[in-house]
Amino acid sequence: MKQYINPKSAAWEGLSERSAINSADLSASVNRILDAVKADGDQALFEYAKRFDGVKLGQLAVTEKEIEAASRAVPQTLKAAIDLAYKNIYQFHLAQREQTVVVESTPGVKCWRKSVPIERVGLYIPAGSAPLFSTILMLGIPAMIAGCKEVILCSPASADQGINPAILYTAKKVGISRVFKAGGAQAIAAMAYGTESIPSVYKIFGPGNQYVTKAKEMVQMQGVAIDMPAGPSEVLVIADETCNPEFVAADLLSQAEHGADSQVMLLSNSKEIVDVCLKSLKTQLEALPKKEIAEKALANSRAIVFDSLEECIDFSNFYAPEHLILASEKAETWQDKIINAGSVFLGNYSCESAGDYASGTNHTLPTNAFARNYSGVSLDSFIKKITFQKINAQGIQNIGPAIEVMAEAEDLIAHKKAVSIRLKQLKS
Amino acid sequence: MKQYINPKSAAWEGLSERSAINSADLSASVNRILDAVKADGDQALFEYAKRFDGVKLGQLAVTEKEIEAASRAVPQTLKAAIDLAYKNIYQFHLAQREQTVVVESTPGVKCWRKSVPIERVGLYIPAGSAPLFSTILMLGIPAMIAGCKEVILCSPASADQGINPAILYTAKKVGISRVFKAGGAQAIAAMAYGTESIPSVYKIFGPGNQYVTKAKEMVQMQGVAIDMPAGPSEVLVIADETCNPEFVAADLLSQAEHGADSQVMLLSNSKEIVDVCLKSLKTQLEALPKKEIAEKALANSRAIVFDSLEECIDFSNFYAPEHLILASEKAETWQDKIINAGSVFLGNYSCESAGDYASGTNHTLPTNAFARNYSGVSLDSFIKKITFQKINAQGIQNIGPAIEVMAEAEDLIAHKKAVSIRLKQLKS
Repeated sequence: MKQYINPKSAAWEGLSERSAINSADLSASVNRILDAVKADGDQALFEYAKRFDGVKLGQLAVTEKEIEAASRAVPQTLKAAIDLAYKNIYQFHLAQREQTVVVESTPGVKCWRKSVPIERVGLYIPAGSAPLFSTILMLGIPAMIAGCKEVILCSPASADQGINPAILYTAKKVGISRVFKAGGAQAIAAMAYGTESIPSVYKIFGPGNQYVTKAKEMVQMQGVAIDMPAGPSEVLVIADETCNPEFVAADLLSQAEHGADSQVMLLSNSKEIVDVCLKSLKTQLEALPKKEIAEKALANSRAIVFDSLEECIDFSNFYAPEHLILASEKAETWQDKIINAGSVFLGNYSCESAGDYASGTNHTLPTNAFARNYSGVSLDSFIKKITFQKINAQGIQNIGPAIEVMAEAEDLIAHKKAVSIRLKQLKS
Repeated sequence: MKQYINPKSAAWEGLSERSAINSADLSASVNRILDAVKADGDQALFEYAKRFDGVKLGQLAVTEKEIEAASRAVPQTLKAAIDLAYKNIYQFHLAQREQTVVVESTPGVKCWRKSVPIERVGLYIPAGSAPLFSTILMLGIPAMIAGCKEVILCSPASADQGINPAILYTAKKVGISRVFKAGGAQAIAAMAYGTESIPSVYKIFGPGNQYVTKAKEMVQMQGVAIDMPAGPSEVLVIADETCNPEFVAADLLSQAEHGADSQVMLLSNSKEIVDVCLKSLKTQLEALPKKEIAEKALANSRAIVFDSLEECIDFSNFYAPEHLILASEKAETWQDKIINAGSVFLGNYSCESAGDYASGTNHTLPTNAFARNYSGVSLDSFIKKITFQKINAQGIQNIGPAIEVMAEAEDLIAHKKAVSIRLKQLKS
């Protein structure tokens, strides 16, 4: 990790740079995949599974039998852990439901919003380096609470074991019965356009590699909604003299192991604290199975000493981290100053891993400074809010004349007349 | 309007088609504009104003003096109408604020969400055919309630009068002090990248022509959020025997006058009702100043008779209209069946014009079937929700072991260790 002491605000832009994604040429190849799936449906998916994953598939839909077998294959301890996480995530997302509030803005004019589930959603769960079953909890639970009618899941099968049992078990746990063996950009295409086996959906969720990300971007331009724009994962830790440096180091490493393009940022008002944290990080790094990946991520990473905690927070708001850990016993007193962040972890026992798995908050969060303008996934992501209005005779008499004046000023005479004709009838 | 009697569901896709947008070649020219503004800033905006709007501008920022003059130029009746609309829109959007709910998902594990305003937002207000000051109310009011720190507005100036006084008056009314004379794709570019005069923003709102829409799409790919994807405006009316056919006709026309690409759909369980509505429409059309535009829109439009109201509603949910008018005295009993719509108008006195201007609901709504997966603009559009968690020693002891198991199963050992190191310290 490179160290910086008191960088001027002119340098903040540079210090907030994420590792560049090389997306050259990706559009063309992803476009080819989208077109192939659109044209050839299941057949294209079979061919891509063979070519990219080395799997010869008999059918795309996972069978009831496979799901049962998976359930037996998942160890009891893992099932119990998933159950605990499920309960917490469920509770937190259930509390996000909104009551309908009827506002009578003017006598006779009632307006309200109703939350309605998006009817058909698709979840993509990658399985490249590891089976991300935790993401199924994060996406499947709010989808179920929202009441989405059709929730499907695509995940690539491997040649030896099909789809990982933990993925199938978790899918069943959150009530997803339609799981398909499809991965990469081709899975996104299948969910966007539909194939013989896979139904098309209105919104696609889930992480993935650069091809998946590009495919999501491209189908978004064609009218399919997506959860959010994607980028490599990142954490920013602000530590003061009340932090536990070993914990800080462990948290930085838990982010660094995600991928070579991950970024970890350590901010403090004390050079001593930074030094102790980085020393511990060096020691802990040695014991990690993913040491090489973490080392690469650390090469993109920065430790910055500011004069004050206020400046640390200002920089953090500028950086807009996906995860923000306030490693301090006084964390709660800072929280009101946080403007841009995906999820915030307060105090020395609130580690990022907790939010990644089991505290209850969602781990699908805005990266790449998108925390400035996007929220993480929540129940909101699976619903639309429809506005309703009920205006009675008194209501249109109260607001009608104003509408007539405004419509005329906007040169929309038919708009005006739609009111006039009602006012006239009421007068007669 | 073409009429259809009882179309089979296989024909619904075709009957839901919107008028095609010819976007060929637009990308290249919009890209040129984006690049020019990025490179030359204000200078590019001055040149485009001259070239596209025929205006030689001295400066981009509207002055305090111009705003005062505008305020004097707006007639008192219009001011009073805007005031009434303001009050209703303000009330409805104020009721959308959310209380923070703290969920203790497990003893010692507290999670909550906080709504935080998006710091910098930009509104685009076109002025081509008419000054859409009502859209300033719809975007500016929730921005102010959200507490966005910087709210700017761009609108093209005309050679004779600069920016329309009603636009400047309404901007001031909603508390926007920074208004810039810039239009089209170049205004979107300015708000996305910033220029010497115009600050960059994190999210861009507002309607516009095809160039504006394409520019918004393109800057979205570069990380700037936008309100929603755009398409021509549309209304779907479901009328039964308790409707007032003259009102229905007036409502259809108020949509049709928006533009030649607008679409109006009339659904009923009675051919007689459709016939009477269309007869009245023909008569009312003759008296409209925008008759020619409305006629073109009606050529893209459809009247469909179904056997039952249930089928009308099913089709409407399939079509996912921006505006849905339930022209019936029994409208309230149908409302629970509405799944896909932007805004719904219940009963014979709830005309679309009311929602367009003054009932309180927002008129920036999803078109082009996007009501299936997007909400209209609301207070939500101007905020992010940041999740927080505070886990104490007891909390991490309660959920830590489950996190360890799950992290290990996902092969993320550093994630596991971030928990283990804490549990170990607590045991010692």
